Amino acid sequence: MIDEKIKQAVDILKEKNVDMWLTFVRETSSTPDPVLDLILGTNCVWPSAFILTATGQAVAIVGSLDVQNIKDHAPYEVVGYVDSIKNELLKTLEKFDPKRIAINFSLNDVMADGLTHGMYLTLCEYLKGSLYLDRLESSEMIIAALRGRKSPSEIERIKSAIDETLKIFDEVTDFVKVGMSEQNVQSFIRGKMKERELEPAWDPEQCPAVFTGPESAGAHAGPTKRKIQPGHIMNIDFGVRKNDYVSDLQRTWYFLKPNETEVPDEVERGFETIRDAIKKAAEALKPGVEGWTVDAVARNYIVEAGYEEYPHALGHQVGRKAHDGSALLCPKWDRYKNLPFLKVEAGQVYTLEPRLTVKGHGVATIEEIVVVTENGCEFLSKPQEKLIVIS
Amino acid sequence: MIDEKIKQAVDILKEKNVDMWLTFVRETSSTPDPVLDLILGTNCVWPSAFILTATGQAVAIVGSLDVQNIKDHAPYEVVGYVDSIKNELLKTLEKFDPKRIAINFSLNDVMADGLTHGMYLTLCEYLKGSLYLDRLESSEMIIAALRGRKSPSEIERIKSAIDETLKIFDEVTDFVKVGMSEQNVQSFIRGKMKERELEPAWDPEQCPAVFTGPESAGAHAGPTKRKIQPGHIMNIDFGVRKNDYVSDLQRTWYFLKPNETEVPDEVERGFETIRDAIKKAAEALKPGVEGWTVDAVARNYIVEAGYEEYPHALGHQVGRKAHDGSALLCPKWDRYKNLPFLKVEAGQVYTLEPRLTVKGHGVATIEEIVVVTENGCEFLSKPQEKLIVIS
Repeated sequence: MIDEKIKQAVDILKEKNVDMWLTFVRETSSTPDPVLDLILGTNCVWPSAFILTATGQAVAIVGSLDVQNIKDHAPYEVVGYVDSIKNELLKTLEKFDPKRIAINFSLNDVMADGLTHGMYLTLCEYLKGSLYLDRLESSEMIIAALRGRKSPSEIERIKSAIDETLKIFDEVTDFVKVGMSEQNVQSFIRGKMKERELEPAWDPEQCPAVFTGPESAGAHAGPTKRKIQPGHIMNIDFGVRKNDYVSDLQRTWYFLKPNETEVPDEVERGFETIRDAIKKAAEALKPGVEGWTVDAVARNYIVEAGYEEYPHALGHQVGRKAHDGSALLCPKWDRYKNLPFLKVEAGQVYTLEPRLTVKGHGVATIEEIVVVTENGCEFLSKPQEKLIVIS
Repeated sequence: MIDEKIKQAVDILKEKNVDMWLTFVRETSSTPDPVLDLILGTNCVWPSAFILTATGQAVAIVGSLDVQNIKDHAPYEVVGYVDSIKNELLKTLEKFDPKRIAINFSLNDVMADGLTHGMYLTLCEYLKGSLYLDRLESSEMIIAALRGRKSPSEIERIKSAIDETLKIFDEVTDFVKVGMSEQNVQSFIRGKMKERELEPAWDPEQCPAVFTGPESAGAHAGPTKRKIQPGHIMNIDFGVRKNDYVSDLQRTWYFLKPNETEVPDEVERGFETIRDAIKKAAEALKPGVEGWTVDAVARNYIVEAGYEEYPHALGHQVGRKAHDGSALLCPKWDRYKNLPFLKVEAGQVYTLEPRLTVKGHGVATIEEIVVVTENGCEFLSKPQEKLIVIS
């Protein structure tokens, strides 16, 4: 995978007309740069520079004790140092004399923002007085393309993580009953993950996240002792990591009251509004559109149906990380910076995950995963068509 | 632990005469700030500000979906936002009107350098035109004191991780034989960790690290298929995480040749030189000295004995991380920035880990852990006094 991604990166440098991509890091087990999963596959201890050029060169400058480990993991020409990285770094810059040097920071994209501010200042100090200080720019568009454009084998791995997740959701349906707590459901899912030797796709405290009833946090929190009651809507947000790639999916369940034979209209309507918002958004998702336009389709559909708009993005990219960065299907809110304006590209994999609250019952939310094709998109997850009803 | 550390942080702010400490982060599962282990204990998704003041206030400004999770983990007054963090952040700054604002970046200390450059630029953009942009400074001295000065319960946890590690080293001594590979020894140790439900203290690929013979990488690399031969020195670098705190220790073994009844003189001398270098360094380690002076004691002792100097620091702090940042017992090399000049303080926990090469046999290295007391230091690990000889 690392070799494949490094080759792809060189092509992207040519396409973007950038001469050199420099990733500058230290002690990556404590302050990791998320892009190293793609172009290195291990950690380094001392200040290190990973350099790729549009001419296809790959040079790593690392502390002497890190040399062997870097050689074992990725196809760089590895240069070791003891006292300071400065001389070797300047020598390498002079050798290639790049006109444009992309470095690993970004205002917009967390996945392209691995350079710490202290390391940025250190780099500037090293380059002061050289030709190169003024040639630095953000590598966000390189990283966006490299992470975003998935190869067939990357998509295969995501698909495989999705399939495992959907199987576990089916097992939850057979297991779950009124009276169980959110934490009971979490324990059940953890057991299934252990049986299959699967890792959680994000923070294990919140993966799976289980929310039942009208008083639950609804998102970004761990399961509580709150018990499932008749009349509750329950939703689960869950994904697994398999062969380094992840899934991120949500499903919605309803628990009938003793005297109910059918799902109440307002619950059914809430669920169907979410389901249909996803369908309409998927129809709008294709190469060339800006992410905010896809978000607006689902958002407007839900608001026109009389619900509050969801307080987050419609969808994010998925890959090695559950939040894989760059182009986002989101509203034009300040906190999303330029991400809503980036153009969708073929090969990108997105979640679609609107939500709405059904008063007195809970939160209806579905999260599907789609891959962008040449003309539109295809579902990688078998979509939830019907509310799962537990009697 | 979080409550204890937040109280300690307020005292440190008063001591350092800093009005406010602001930790600014986003999506910390992908770009974690190592200080959040001490003052938060969970992750956040959207741009977030964790604020402590010298007057004892604790305020967290986080995305609306993160509010519940933050409340569940740490004693902050939590403010949620949907569109942008900017307004709430400015409001909070105006309310406290701090003259000195320490933020989470550092040229020197990786453990205090969690602010990414993109997030730094974002913060500057938000504060432009306000009184506060010019009041920003590094929080490295606050974080150094907070991580470094261990409470009795923190030291107890480190001690407990050390004890587990030393037990596993004893089991290795009973197990290991000529003809086994480095990877065989690694598997054995992994089995023992699993039995005891212990996590590795750092990157599992290199924890344990096992190095045998004169051709091994010697440090910062994973175990290979290289086999232990008669006449080899083997060393293992290994630590475990227990109750969130870690150990980091090294031991050295020697494998007799068939005709040998005693360890060759040059091997014995190499081992004893390391052992005695550690003793002498420990005698020099006490509050108020600068780290480089302690490194120099061990370094000079080894060089005067006719060996090459080790290409790294004598010792680093240990705590929640194996490399716990800040004051370092290291030479005055550029890559260590100001760390060799920081003064040792009581309550800090350090490794002592010089190394030397015995030609034709391998690398002799011992790593002990000591805690700095009011007048000197005490060993937390029972020191290796004798070479472990396998016949």
